[in-house]
Amino acid sequence: MTQKLPTRPVLTLAAAKVMAAAAEDVALKNEWSVAIAIVDDSGSLLYFQRMDQNANSSVDVAIAKAIHAVNFRRPTSFHEDLLDKGNMVVLGMPGMLPLEGGIPLRVGEHVVGAIGVSGVRSSQDSIIAQAGEQALTTYLSDSGIIENDF
Amino acid sequence: MTQKLPTRPVLTLAAAKVMAAAAEDVALKNEWSVAIAIVDDSGSLLYFQRMDQNANSSVDVAIAKAIHAVNFRRPTSFHEDLLDKGNMVVLGMPGMLPLEGGIPLRVGEHVVGAIGVSGVRSSQDSIIAQAGEQALTTYLSDSGIIENDF
Amino acid sequence: MTQKLPTRPVLTLAAAKVMAAAAEDVALKNEWSVAIAIVDDSGSLLYFQRMDQNANSSVDVAIAKAIHAVNFRRPTSFHEDLLDKGNMVVLGMPGMLPLEGGIPLRVGEHVVGAIGVSGVRSSQDSIIAQAGEQALTTYLSDSGIIENDF
Amino acid sequence: MTQKLPTRPVLTLAAAKVMAAAAEDVALKNEWSVAIAIVDDSGSLLYFQRMDQNANSSVDVAIAKAIHAVNFRRPTSFHEDLLDKGNMVVLGMPGMLPLEGGIPLRVGEHVVGAIGVSGVRSSQDSIIAQAGEQALTTYLSDSGIIENDF
Repeated sequence: MTQKLPTRPVLTLAAAKVMAAAAEDVALKNEWSVAIAIVDDSGSLLYFQRMDQNANSSVDVAIAKAIHAVNFRRPTSFHEDLLDKGNMVVLGMPGMLPLEGGIPLRVGEHVVGAIGVSGVRSSQDSIIAQAGEQALTTYLSDSGIIENDF
Repeated sequence: MTQKLPTRPVLTLAAAKVMAAAAEDVALKNEWSVAIAIVDDSGSLLYFQRMDQNANSSVDVAIAKAIHAVNFRRPTSFHEDLLDKGNMVVLGMPGMLPLEGGIPLRVGEHVVGAIGVSGVRSSQDSIIAQAGEQALTTYLSDSGIIENDF
Repeated sequence: MTQKLPTRPVLTLAAAKVMAAAAEDVALKNEWSVAIAIVDDSGSLLYFQRMDQNANSSVDVAIAKAIHAVNFRRPTSFHEDLLDKGNMVVLGMPGMLPLEGGIPLRVGEHVVGAIGVSGVRSSQDSIIAQAGEQALTTYLSDSGIIENDF
Repeated sequence: MTQKLPTRPVLTLAAAKVMAAAAEDVALKNEWSVAIAIVDDSGSLLYFQRMDQNANSSVDVAIAKAIHAVNFRRPTSFHEDLLDKGNMVVLGMPGMLPLEGGIPLRVGEHVVGAIGVSGVRSSQDSIIAQAGEQALTTYLSDSGIIENDF
C-alpha cells in the first residue's frame, strides 16, 4: 500500500442495518409506511427496504433522495429551501430531488453515504431519515474509535 | 395459500374494457379525440386505445397520467393543484405529471390501477377519465356483494 | 370487496427479511460477498442489501436478475440454458439477464416476487438465492394452514 | 390541400379493434394469455390489451415486436431467421426484437402499422398475430373500397 493515496471511511452493511432499523422503528411507532434507502459514497445502493402498503412511487423517490443527498453533499431540504425562495434552477439540475427526506451521512470531513426516506409527508420522511442518521452517529461513537462530527 | 401473506384485488381486462367503453362513449358524444390508458396496480399497461386524429403526444401523456395516479395514489389533479399554489417541487418529482386526467381506481382500501386520458383540454380529459372510473364502480357493484368506497 | 375481481397474495417486508437473512447466512458461511435483491410481483424493489467488498456491478445485476425472474416467471438459469444451447434471441429480449442467480417466488399458482443475487460465481449466487427461496417456503408453511407448491 | 404531397392510408381505431378482437378470439379458444399491441405507421401505440394471468414481461415484448415490425417493415420472424443462421448483427440493431410474433400490416404498397403478440410460445404468439392481420384484410375487403395485397 502506498502512502501517496489518501483513504476514506467506507460505510458498511452492518452500519446501514443499524440505521435502517432505527429509521424503521420510528416509522412503526408512528404507523407510517415508508421506503428507506441507504446509498454509499458513490450513490450506489447499499440497503433498501419498503414497508407494506407503501405507495409505488416511494421506491424511486426514496432512492432519488439518497442519491441527491450524497451527490450534492447536502440534505435535500437545502435545495427544497432554495426552490421555495424562487431558485428555479434547482428543477433543472440533473439528479436533484428538492424535497426533504434525504440526508448525507458525514464522518469527519467525509460524506460516506446518504439515507433517503419516502412514503409520508416529507417532513415526516425527514424525521425518519434523521433517526437513521442519528443511529449511525451513535453506532460509530459506541465503537470508541472514531469521533464523528455531525 | 398461507395466511401469512395478505391478498389484494386484481384489475381484470374485462373490467378495463368496461371502463374504456364508458370513457370512449363520453369522448364520442363530445366529439373529442383522446388516448385512454388503463394500468394495473403496479403501473403496468393493461389497456390502451387511441382515437383517430389524436395528437401524437397524447400516447405518452395518457399513459403517464395513469402511472402517476396509481403510483402516487392520487388523481393527477391533486398535484396540479399543488403546483398551481406554487409548490414547484411537483415539477421535480420522478414519475409525476401534474395535469388533470389521471385517476386512481380504488376498491375498498386498495388502489387496483388507474385510468389516464389525454387529447383535449385537461378538464375534458378528466371528465372522460371519471366516466371510466364510474363505470368500474357500477361494474363492481353489479355483483351485489359489497359496496366499494370510491 | 367485490367478487368480480380476483385476488392474489402479496409479498411482505417481513417475509423478505426472513429470506434475505437466510440468503446472507449462506453467503457469510462461505465468505462470499454478494448483493441480494428481492422484488415484488411487479418487479418493484422490496428489499436490497449489499455486503462489504462487493463489486459495484453486483447492484444492478442482482436487481436485474430478480426483475427477470419475476417478469418472465422463470429462474434466470432457464434462459441461460437456452442461450447455452445456442438460442441467441435471449440476448435481444428486453429485461432479460440470462445468468443464474435469479429465482421467482411461487405461492400456489402465483408468482409473488423474486430474489436475485450477484457477487460470486453465478452457480454460487444461485445457491444463495435458493436459500432465500427455501426460507420463504419454510416461513409460509410455519403457518400450518396450507402447503404451497414451490 | 396541395396535390404536391402524396397521401397514405391511416390505420384507424375501428380497424385496430377488429384486429384485436380476432386475435383475442384465437387466444381465448386456445386458453392462451397474451398481450396484444397494435401500433400505427410511426410505431406509436394505437391499441393495447393484456389478458389476465399474463406475465409482466409480455407488455414490453408485445409492444417491442410491433414496433420492430413496422419500423423494419418485416415480420420479426424475418430477423429471427437471420439470427438463427448466425447473423449476429441482428442483436446489435437498435429497436430489433428478433422473435416471431410481430407482423407488419400492409395495405397496398404501404405499411400502415403492425401487430405484436407476447405471452405464450413465440410460434403461438405468431398465430395470434396472424389472426389479427387476417382480420384487417377481411375488414378492408368487406368495405368494398380498397383491395389490399397482403
